[in-house]
Amino acid sequence: MDHIAKRIAVLGSTGSIGRQTLEIVRVLRDKFQIVALAAGRNTDLLVQQALEFRPNLVYFEEGISSKPDCLDFCTFASLEEIAGHPNVDLVLVATSGKAGLNPTIAALRARKQVALANKEVLVSAGNLVMAEACHAGIDILPVDSEHSAIWQCLRGERTAEIERLVLTASGGPFFRYGHEAMSGITPEQALRHPTWQMGKKVTIDSATLMNKGMEIIEARWLFNVALSQIEVVIHPGSVVHSLVEFRDGSVKAQLSPPDMRLPIQYALTYPERLPNDQLPRMKWDTPMSLSFEKPDWTRFPCLTLAREAAEKGDTYPAVLSAADEEAVELFLAHRIGFTDIAKIVEATLEKHEPVENPALEAILEADAWARQFTADWSLNKL
Amino acid sequence: MDHIAKRIAVLGSTGSIGRQTLEIVRVLRDKFQIVALAAGRNTDLLVQQALEFRPNLVYFEEGISSKPDCLDFCTFASLEEIAGHPNVDLVLVATSGKAGLNPTIAALRARKQVALANKEVLVSAGNLVMAEACHAGIDILPVDSEHSAIWQCLRGERTAEIERLVLTASGGPFFRYGHEAMSGITPEQALRHPTWQMGKKVTIDSATLMNKGMEIIEARWLFNVALSQIEVVIHPGSVVHSLVEFRDGSVKAQLSPPDMRLPIQYALTYPERLPNDQLPRMKWDTPMSLSFEKPDWTRFPCLTLAREAAEKGDTYPAVLSAADEEAVELFLAHRIGFTDIAKIVEATLEKHEPVENPALEAILEADAWARQFTADWSLNKL
Repeated sequence: MDHIAKRIAVLGSTGSIGRQTLEIVRVLRDKFQIVALAAGRNTDLLVQQALEFRPNLVYFEEGISSKPDCLDFCTFASLEEIAGHPNVDLVLVATSGKAGLNPTIAALRARKQVALANKEVLVSAGNLVMAEACHAGIDILPVDSEHSAIWQCLRGERTAEIERLVLTASGGPFFRYGHEAMSGITPEQALRHPTWQMGKKVTIDSATLMNKGMEIIEARWLFNVALSQIEVVIHPGSVVHSLVEFRDGSVKAQLSPPDMRLPIQYALTYPERLPNDQLPRMKWDTPMSLSFEKPDWTRFPCLTLAREAAEKGDTYPAVLSAADEEAVELFLAHRIGFTDIAKIVEATLEKHEPVENPALEAILEADAWARQFTADWSLNKL
Repeated sequence: MDHIAKRIAVLGSTGSIGRQTLEIVRVLRDKFQIVALAAGRNTDLLVQQALEFRPNLVYFEEGISSKPDCLDFCTFASLEEIAGHPNVDLVLVATSGKAGLNPTIAALRARKQVALANKEVLVSAGNLVMAEACHAGIDILPVDSEHSAIWQCLRGERTAEIERLVLTASGGPFFRYGHEAMSGITPEQALRHPTWQMGKKVTIDSATLMNKGMEIIEARWLFNVALSQIEVVIHPGSVVHSLVEFRDGSVKAQLSPPDMRLPIQYALTYPERLPNDQLPRMKWDTPMSLSFEKPDWTRFPCLTLAREAAEKGDTYPAVLSAADEEAVELFLAHRIGFTDIAKIVEATLEKHEPVENPALEAILEADAWARQFTADWSLNKL
């Protein structure tokens, strides 16, 4: 395999993760071939990317009704067609929200490597997706910095010897704010993340710590551990991306300057690690201090809501994910306040009537119900 | 192998590492059987240990001329006989100074697992010892916390993908002292290490940073990297025991509260990790700050001397090790000052006439020459 380029489909190529994936491919040209690009809203950029990388397949969600002449070398295809296409070796799922779910399942069924950057896929349907992965004999490759860190720490180790996974959280821009100050937070403030440059949805989720709550759920599925084995610590520097404690008391951590290109590249090149001088390096000749403290679960109710939804299981995590996605949209549109995000999610979870051991249809129904409930709730309250 | 106890020979059983090894064996009784104990000066404790663990073989360096009646179940044997004995599966070399060299080679030639806690073995004769290990197809299991950390970080990783090994150093009790203050340091002050409880020799070596310099040499041999790939950082907390940077920029670290029982147990149980509730745990609900800064190579000349000796190679590292051992003895006996340790080692290295690609005899000769030179130098200067 060493001299054959890995053929990659990038779903969500115009988002933050998608663009950084293409940066990696630009540097490691001989290792990868982009065979499919798919994007939602930013069609101009998608056309540009297609002209540069010349994929066989493209997907536009909206904005272009007919294929531009300049893309005559591409075939249009649905996300599921791309994910299962015979010319694809690895599918990078970097869509946002529930859009990633069906293509992830399609890719697993076609026994493709799946690099997963979309949180909601495992949060909403972890049980189902992991069953598909297990059936196909495919390991899902995490792209998130935290899960990539855990995955790296587990290299060569035995899952049965894990005592605890410790997810680090930057704490976002407001982790020292009191209750009062929090209610006045604007979208503009919340979008200014202290350490990470990311998409809007995940940046707001980082500020509420919902992001970390969803990562608890993802970690549970990716690494097959009990929820009680997953801890969260606040680490404002975002240098230690997560840690694993083993049953002998030894702890392993993965560190790097905060830059998503490293976990993306690791997922693409795994099990190899390739040199890339574009990636930032730790500086050992500069003083560095790394601090850790426990999160305040009451000031960040989203963290608690996520853990509770995970404990209840069934369709609760799907509802959590859908309600949060809608609530974040409302917040970004200045229609609700920052602290209303948790309130809407909580109210939606409270009213939800769960479906036990849900199949895909039940999950999608719960998702749709939660979105409707969230919209109604916000209309009534505002 | 799971239900057969591993048969262990502890060379240096009354020292700090030896005693902690027996603590581990006490907890994991069904996993290990102590078949041999060997000690130097502390014969009372050795008799006690033998009565408790009932080894087949014992070795006393001095103090008892005939075997006490209470040990009628033991056979006396030399260190080399013990290391190569058919009833031994793993030899823990926890002697201090050059005493570990011959038994290590004997154990490797007899194809035993070797857990190495003795620094001087690899410092003096790394080339030879690694050639023996390679020939026997045996990996040397490091017991030092730093090398254990690197070894753990390298589990499942590829040696060719290592960019850098980063050894952490507590800095010892004096790492903020100025030149002036250093010359007045007494053995009593130097023996008070801020984070580690260890034997006297290694505690003084920690205070001069000679210990870290010798670890550079060990790491080079254990992990087959160039000296230029080994970095030292001061980390006063002694929680991060060392780090590995890979060529993609990712860094892995191993952490645990400073307690030698963890690396000892890891070497004994490898590749398994076993639960042991006697071992301290990291506390994730307590704020923690880990700081790192570069060492001051001029205030700690031993670090520079060790690196230079390693770069020169041949018999220089053996001379470094021997001169340091003698100098530390002189310091502990209040016969020289703290800063004289580096001066003696430097003077000895300067006068040394090296032997290229030394065999064992040449190494032992260089060692003897260095000890004599050190003794003479100190007599002339004092």
